[in-house]
Amino acid sequence: MDFTIPAALEKMLAEMRNFVRAEVMPLEREFSARPFRDLLPTLQEKRARVRARGWWAPPLPRAIGGMGMPLTDFAHVSEELGRSPLGHFIFNCAAPDIGNMEVLLQHATPEQKEKYLLPLARGEIRSCFSMTEPDYPGSNPVWMGTTARKEGSDYVINGRKWYTSSADGAAFAVVMAVTNPDDPKPHRRASQIIVPTNTPGFNIVRNISVMGHAGDGWASHAEIVYDNCRVPQKNLLGAEGAGFVIAQDRLGPGRIHHCMRWIGICERAFELMCAHSASRQLAPGEVLAKKQSVQFWIAESRAEIDAARLMVLNAAFKMEREGAKAARIEISTIKWFVANVLDRVLDRAIQAHGGLGVTDDTPLAGWYRQERAARIYDGADEVHKTVVARQVLREYDVEI
Amino acid sequence: MDFTIPAALEKMLAEMRNFVRAEVMPLEREFSARPFRDLLPTLQEKRARVRARGWWAPPLPRAIGGMGMPLTDFAHVSEELGRSPLGHFIFNCAAPDIGNMEVLLQHATPEQKEKYLLPLARGEIRSCFSMTEPDYPGSNPVWMGTTARKEGSDYVINGRKWYTSSADGAAFAVVMAVTNPDDPKPHRRASQIIVPTNTPGFNIVRNISVMGHAGDGWASHAEIVYDNCRVPQKNLLGAEGAGFVIAQDRLGPGRIHHCMRWIGICERAFELMCAHSASRQLAPGEVLAKKQSVQFWIAESRAEIDAARLMVLNAAFKMEREGAKAARIEISTIKWFVANVLDRVLDRAIQAHGGLGVTDDTPLAGWYRQERAARIYDGADEVHKTVVARQVLREYDVEI
Amino acid sequence: MDFTIPAALEKMLAEMRNFVRAEVMPLEREFSARPFRDLLPTLQEKRARVRARGWWAPPLPRAIGGMGMPLTDFAHVSEELGRSPLGHFIFNCAAPDIGNMEVLLQHATPEQKEKYLLPLARGEIRSCFSMTEPDYPGSNPVWMGTTARKEGSDYVINGRKWYTSSADGAAFAVVMAVTNPDDPKPHRRASQIIVPTNTPGFNIVRNISVMGHAGDGWASHAEIVYDNCRVPQKNLLGAEGAGFVIAQDRLGPGRIHHCMRWIGICERAFELMCAHSASRQLAPGEVLAKKQSVQFWIAESRAEIDAARLMVLNAAFKMEREGAKAARIEISTIKWFVANVLDRVLDRAIQAHGGLGVTDDTPLAGWYRQERAARIYDGADEVHKTVVARQVLREYDVEI
Amino acid sequence: MDFTIPAALEKMLAEMRNFVRAEVMPLEREFSARPFRDLLPTLQEKRARVRARGWWAPPLPRAIGGMGMPLTDFAHVSEELGRSPLGHFIFNCAAPDIGNMEVLLQHATPEQKEKYLLPLARGEIRSCFSMTEPDYPGSNPVWMGTTARKEGSDYVINGRKWYTSSADGAAFAVVMAVTNPDDPKPHRRASQIIVPTNTPGFNIVRNISVMGHAGDGWASHAEIVYDNCRVPQKNLLGAEGAGFVIAQDRLGPGRIHHCMRWIGICERAFELMCAHSASRQLAPGEVLAKKQSVQFWIAESRAEIDAARLMVLNAAFKMEREGAKAARIEISTIKWFVANVLDRVLDRAIQAHGGLGVTDDTPLAGWYRQERAARIYDGADEVHKTVVARQVLREYDVEI
Repeated sequence: MDFTIPAALEKMLAEMRNFVRAEVMPLEREFSARPFRDLLPTLQEKRARVRARGWWAPPLPRAIGGMGMPLTDFAHVSEELGRSPLGHFIFNCAAPDIGNMEVLLQHATPEQKEKYLLPLARGEIRSCFSMTEPDYPGSNPVWMGTTARKEGSDYVINGRKWYTSSADGAAFAVVMAVTNPDDPKPHRRASQIIVPTNTPGFNIVRNISVMGHAGDGWASHAEIVYDNCRVPQKNLLGAEGAGFVIAQDRLGPGRIHHCMRWIGICERAFELMCAHSASRQLAPGEVLAKKQSVQFWIAESRAEIDAARLMVLNAAFKMEREGAKAARIEISTIKWFVANVLDRVLDRAIQAHGGLGVTDDTPLAGWYRQERAARIYDGADEVHKTVVARQVLREYDVEI
Repeated sequence: MDFTIPAALEKMLAEMRNFVRAEVMPLEREFSARPFRDLLPTLQEKRARVRARGWWAPPLPRAIGGMGMPLTDFAHVSEELGRSPLGHFIFNCAAPDIGNMEVLLQHATPEQKEKYLLPLARGEIRSCFSMTEPDYPGSNPVWMGTTARKEGSDYVINGRKWYTSSADGAAFAVVMAVTNPDDPKPHRRASQIIVPTNTPGFNIVRNISVMGHAGDGWASHAEIVYDNCRVPQKNLLGAEGAGFVIAQDRLGPGRIHHCMRWIGICERAFELMCAHSASRQLAPGEVLAKKQSVQFWIAESRAEIDAARLMVLNAAFKMEREGAKAARIEISTIKWFVANVLDRVLDRAIQAHGGLGVTDDTPLAGWYRQERAARIYDGADEVHKTVVARQVLREYDVEI
Repeated sequence: MDFTIPAALEKMLAEMRNFVRAEVMPLEREFSARPFRDLLPTLQEKRARVRARGWWAPPLPRAIGGMGMPLTDFAHVSEELGRSPLGHFIFNCAAPDIGNMEVLLQHATPEQKEKYLLPLARGEIRSCFSMTEPDYPGSNPVWMGTTARKEGSDYVINGRKWYTSSADGAAFAVVMAVTNPDDPKPHRRASQIIVPTNTPGFNIVRNISVMGHAGDGWASHAEIVYDNCRVPQKNLLGAEGAGFVIAQDRLGPGRIHHCMRWIGICERAFELMCAHSASRQLAPGEVLAKKQSVQFWIAESRAEIDAARLMVLNAAFKMEREGAKAARIEISTIKWFVANVLDRVLDRAIQAHGGLGVTDDTPLAGWYRQERAARIYDGADEVHKTVVARQVLREYDVEI
Repeated sequence: MDFTIPAALEKMLAEMRNFVRAEVMPLEREFSARPFRDLLPTLQEKRARVRARGWWAPPLPRAIGGMGMPLTDFAHVSEELGRSPLGHFIFNCAAPDIGNMEVLLQHATPEQKEKYLLPLARGEIRSCFSMTEPDYPGSNPVWMGTTARKEGSDYVINGRKWYTSSADGAAFAVVMAVTNPDDPKPHRRASQIIVPTNTPGFNIVRNISVMGHAGDGWASHAEIVYDNCRVPQKNLLGAEGAGFVIAQDRLGPGRIHHCMRWIGICERAFELMCAHSASRQLAPGEVLAKKQSVQFWIAESRAEIDAARLMVLNAAFKMEREGAKAARIEISTIKWFVANVLDRVLDRAIQAHGGLGVTDDTPLAGWYRQERAARIYDGADEVHKTVVARQVLREYDVEI
C-alpha cells in the first residue's frame, strides 16, 4: 500500500488551490447575493484563464479538449475545486454538464457527439439531466411516469420532471422516459433521449424555490412539463431500454466527483472554523480556541474529513481497477458517509462562528442550506445503506 | 402532581389552533416568497380578527389590552402560535416586541410607558432590542464596545450593534450601552436606554443577509452604527448600571416563549412528516411509512417533543412559583435542549420528504434555515450547558 | 398542571434515601464480589428493618401487608430504591416477584392467592416468570415453542425457556405456554400456568452466564427445560388463552417500576460523576470539573435525567387516570427513552472516572454490564419505537 | 496511491485467519469461564504450533526469533489476531510484552537484553509495564507520585501503581518513577527502571476487579505498592530522565497494534451480527436481516470499520516513512476514532443478538465489558482530541 500523492500532482493541486483562492473565492459574495446571469461574464473570463493555464475539463479526454485525468487523480482536483461553490463550473467539470459529457462520450453517436458533446466540452452551451419526478419516488428509479411514445420517426414525450438542475438556459436535456412499458424487466423499460430545450412541449414550469431561492441559470432546479414534446428517434442515447444502465454509468464517477467536492467544502469550513477560533476573543486575550468544545470540534472534524477522503480515494482506486460493479459497496458507502460528514462539519463550523455563522458573510450558511440536499439526491442515505446491506447479506445467503 | 391542562384552556387552545390553521398558515407561502412589507396590510387585518376574538397579546395585563395570561398558560398558547412563523406576530406577542413590552412594564417610567409601551401594546408601532455586537462575543455579555457618555442632560451613544432584529421600520430601540465603565463590577457597567430610531446618529448599516435573505421590516436583523447618537437621559430604562439585571428579567419568560414556539414548529413538522409518510408511495400500494427508518423518526420525534414540552412546562411552573433564580438550571436546560430537539425534528422531517423537503413548498426548509440560529442566539448551547454545570457543581463546592 | 410532589411523600422519600444510603449501599461491594446466597442472611435482616419502618412492599395493598401506594407515588419510591442494586429486593418490590404479585392479585383464584401470593407478599418465598425462549424471538411474543397439553386433569408442559430470572431458588414459576394452538387469533393461544419448581420435569439447565457472571439465587437468569412437566389444571392463572392479556397487565406498571429504577441509577451515577469531577485533581489545584467536556456531560445528563423522569411520571399519571391502553404511546416511549438515557449517563460517568470507572470500586461498571440489557428486555428499543409509530400512524389511516 | 495489499501478505493473512478460526477461537469459552492459569498449558501448545508455522512474534527482528515484519504489514496481522481475545498472546505479540520488547530492543543495554528481552522474545517469561497511578491522573503523565531515590548503587522505589496489566506471574516490571524531581522540565523528571517482580518491596496488593472480574495471570490488572523496593542502578532503562521519551516510543507502534486489534474485533462482531441477522427468524420465514434497522447497523458498521482501517494503515504508513512525530495527528486520531468505532460496532452487534448478545455464549459481551476501557487507557478520548486540536491550532498560531 502506498498513500503518497505523486509529486507532480501535488504541485498542480497546490497551484489550483492558489488559483481558487485568488480568482474564484472573491466571487462568492456576489454569487450568493445576485442572479447567476449577472455573474456570467466574469465567470466566462475566469474560464478563459483556466483554459490558458491548461486546466480545462480535467476528466475529459485530451482529444476533446480536456486534461485526460484518471479518476483517482481528478478526485484530488475535485476536492480543490470544491473549496468554492464556483470551482467546478469555472473548470468546466460541474454537474450536470460533466455527467452528460461522460455519458455522451460513452454512448452518443458520432452525430450526437458533434452536436452536443463538443460544444459542451468547449463550454459554449450548458445542458441538463431530466430524471427525477415529483410524483414518483427517487428511491425507486424504475417507477416513472414520463413516457416517450413512438410516432413515425419521432418520440413524443409526456410527463412531469423536477430537480432538472440547470435547465434554465441549457441548450438540451437528457431525458429519462419509459419507452418500453411492457418489458417484463422493470429496469429495461426506460431510455435516455436528448431533447433540445427549444423543442415545443418542453415547458419549464418554474425554477423551484429551494431553501429560500429559486435561483437562475446554472444555479437553479427546474420543474418541467413535457407536453407532447416531439424529438426524432435518432436523439435516443444508447440502446432503447438502456436508460438505467446508462444512468448507472453516470453515477459511479459522479459520486467520486461529488464526494471530493464535499470534502473540499469540509476543508474550507474546517479552515474557517480554525481561523475564527484562533482569532475570536471571548475576553481580552482569551481566544475561542481555548474552549475544549471547540477543540473537540476541530479534532472530530479533522478525523472525519480524513476518514472520508481515504474512503473516497479507496473507492475511486477500486472502481478504476476492478470496475464500478466490484466497488458497489464502496461507492454506496461514500455517498452517505461523506454527505453526513459534510453535514456535521458545516454544523460545527457554523456553531463555532456563533451569530456570524448564520449570516452570508461567510460561505458556511450557503453550504448549510444548499448541501442539506446532499443526504437526499443521487440516492438518500437510507437507500444507500440498504444497498450496502444487500450486498453484504448476499454473502450470508439472504436476499433483502 | 397533575399533568392535566384545565378544560377551559384546552378549549381555547383548540380554537387558536383552528384559527392558525385557517387564517395564518395560508399566508406562509407569500411570507417566504415576498417582502414583509407587501404582506403587512394582510397581517394587520388578521390582527384585527385576533383582537375581535379577544385574544390580543396574551401575556400582557388586561389593563393595557392583553389577556393577562400567566406564564404557564401562555406557554401552551405559544406552542399553538408557533405552528406558523406568523402566529406570534399576528397575536402581537412576537419577539422582540413582547420582550420589550415586558421590560417596559416592569421598568419604564409612567412617561416612557405612555410613549412606548402603550402604542406597542396596541400594535401601532414596532420596536427592537439592540444588544449584540459584531466585535464582542455574545457569550460574554459584560464585555461590550458600545458606550453612552453623559453630556449635559443627554446620553451620547457610540458603537456598533448587529442582530438588532426588526430594527427596520421600528419606532424605537432599547439599546444596551456602557454607562459606567469604571464600576468595579463588570455586570454593573451597562444600562438600557430607549432610542427613537429617527434620532440622528442611529444608522442602520444593513439588514444582514442571514441564511440567504436580508429580509425587511419585522423579518430582518439589522447592523446598526450608533454615531454620536444623542438622547435625553430620561430615556434611561430603569436604573443606571442595571442593564444586565433588566436583560436577565427579559430572558426568563422569553425563553419559555421561544421554547414553546419551537415546540409548535416541531409539532407542525411532525404532522407534515407523518402525513407525507402515510401518503407518499414508494411503489404501488407501499407507502413510505412502512419503512422502519421512518417509523423510528416518528417515534424518536414523538418522544423528544413530549420530553421537551414537559421540561418547558416544568420550568415555567417553577419560575412562576419560585422565581427565575430558583429555576436557573431548568431555564438554561430548556434553551439548549429544546433547540436541539427542534434541530433533529426538522432534519428528520426534511429527510422524510426527500427532495420536496428542501423546497419551499413546505415550511420545513424555511425553518431549517431560520431556526439553525436557535442553538446560537440568547446563549449558545455551550454557554447554557456551562451555566447548568456551574450551578450543579456549586453543590459539590467547586466554582467553575 | 402541578409539578409539586406532596410534602408527606417528599418527607418519606428523603427518609428512604437516607436508609438506602446508610443501610443498603454498604452491601454493594459484597453483592458484586460474592455469591448471592452468602449475602442473603444480611438481606433478610435489612428486610426486617424495612418492615419495622412500615415500608414493606409499597405497591401492594395494605390488606396483604403492603403500603397500598398508588403507581404515581410508588414511581418516586422506585427511583429512591433504584439508587442501589439491592434497594427493590430489600423492600420486597423487586422483579420478578413484584410482577408476579401484581398479576396474582388480579388474576389468581383464592386458593392460588393463599398458596402463592401471600408467602410472596410476606417475603417468605421467591418466584419467577418463565416466558422468553431461546429459539423464538422476544419481539414476536405470539410465536412460542412451549406447549401445555391437557391430559386428564393436568397440563403437561414441554419446551425450553431462558432468561427466567431468579428461577434459581424460586418456589414457583409462572410459565407461558401454548394451550390453544388452533385458536385463529395468535394472541389467544397461550396461557399462564403456575408451576412449583419442585415439579418433576422442571429442569434448570444452567444459570446463563450474562456479561461475565452466571450468578445465583435472585441474581441469576436460568435456562429451563420443561420436560413433560405436569401440573394440575387448577394451576391455570386466569382464563385459558389469556396469557398475553395477563402479560400485558404485568408490563404497564412494570415499566414504570423499571424506568424509575433506572432513573435512580442515573441519579446515583450522576452524583458519582459530579463528586469525582469535583475532587479529582488533574494538576495541583486544578480539578477535573474545570474541563468543559465534563461540564457538558453534567449538563447533558442533568437534562436527560430530568426529561426522563417527567416522561415516566406523566406516563404513570396517564395510566392511572385513563388506563394502560390510553397510555400506550407513553408507556412504550419511556421504555426505550429511559433505557437509552441510562446507557448514556452510565457511559459518561464511567468516562469521567477514567480507569477507576471500569473497576468494581464503584457500582458504575456493574450497572454498565448488567443494564446493557435494559435496551433489550421487555421489548427492545426497536420494538417499542415501532409500537409508537404504529399508534401515531393510525391517526393518519395507515396500518404498519 | 495504491490500496493493494501485496499478494504474499494476503496469502499469509488468509492462513492466519484460518489458524485463528480453527485453533484459537475454540478456546474462547474456556478463557472466559475459567482462570487463565488453567488454560495456560493449552496456550503453550498453541504457541508451539504458531512457531512451527514460522509466525512467531511478527514485529520482532528475525535475529531474536521474530518475523521482522514492518509496521505496515504487522498492522494487517494484528487485525487477524484481534479476531480472538487470545490471538496476540498465542503469537507472542500481546500487550504488555510486545511493548516491553520493542522498548528493550531500542533502549536496553546488552546485559539487559540478554536477561530480559531474549527470554521474553522466546516466550519463556512474561513482563509488565508499571506506569499508571491511582492517585494521579493518566491525562497528566508528568505528574506522578512514585519516586526512585538513589542510595549507593541502587534505586529505592516507593509509590503506588495500578493497572499494571499482567503483573500477576510476570518476571519483571518496567516501572516509571521520578528520579529527577528538581529538573525544571517536568517531562525530564522520570525514568524507566527494570524491577524483577521477586524484588523485596514489590508488593501486588490485588488484581483489580475490572468489569466484574479480577482475573489472573496475563489476564489481570494489578495494583502494586512499591515499598522501598531496591534495584541496582544498572537496571535503568535508557538515560535517566528519559522516561517519557521512551514511553512515547512505546506508544506509537503500540497504537497501531491496538487499533488493528480492535478492528479485528470489529470484523468478528460484524460477522456475528450478519450471520445472526441472516439466520434468526422473527416469524416463520422472515429473518431479522429484513429489518431496516439491522440493515443500517450493517451498512454503518461496514463503513466505520473500513474508515477506521484506512485511517490506521495511513497512520502506520506515515509513521514508517516520516516518523512518529510527523504522524502525531494521525496517531492521536486513530486512538479515539477506532476506540469509538469499536464501541458502536459492539453495541450494534449486541443489540442485533437480543438477549443472546448479553450472554457469554458469544464473545460479544466479553468484549463489551473489557474493551470499554479502550476509550480510556493509553490516553482517554478527550486527551487525544486535545492533542490533535493543539497540533492543528499551531498552524493558526495559537497555543492551547
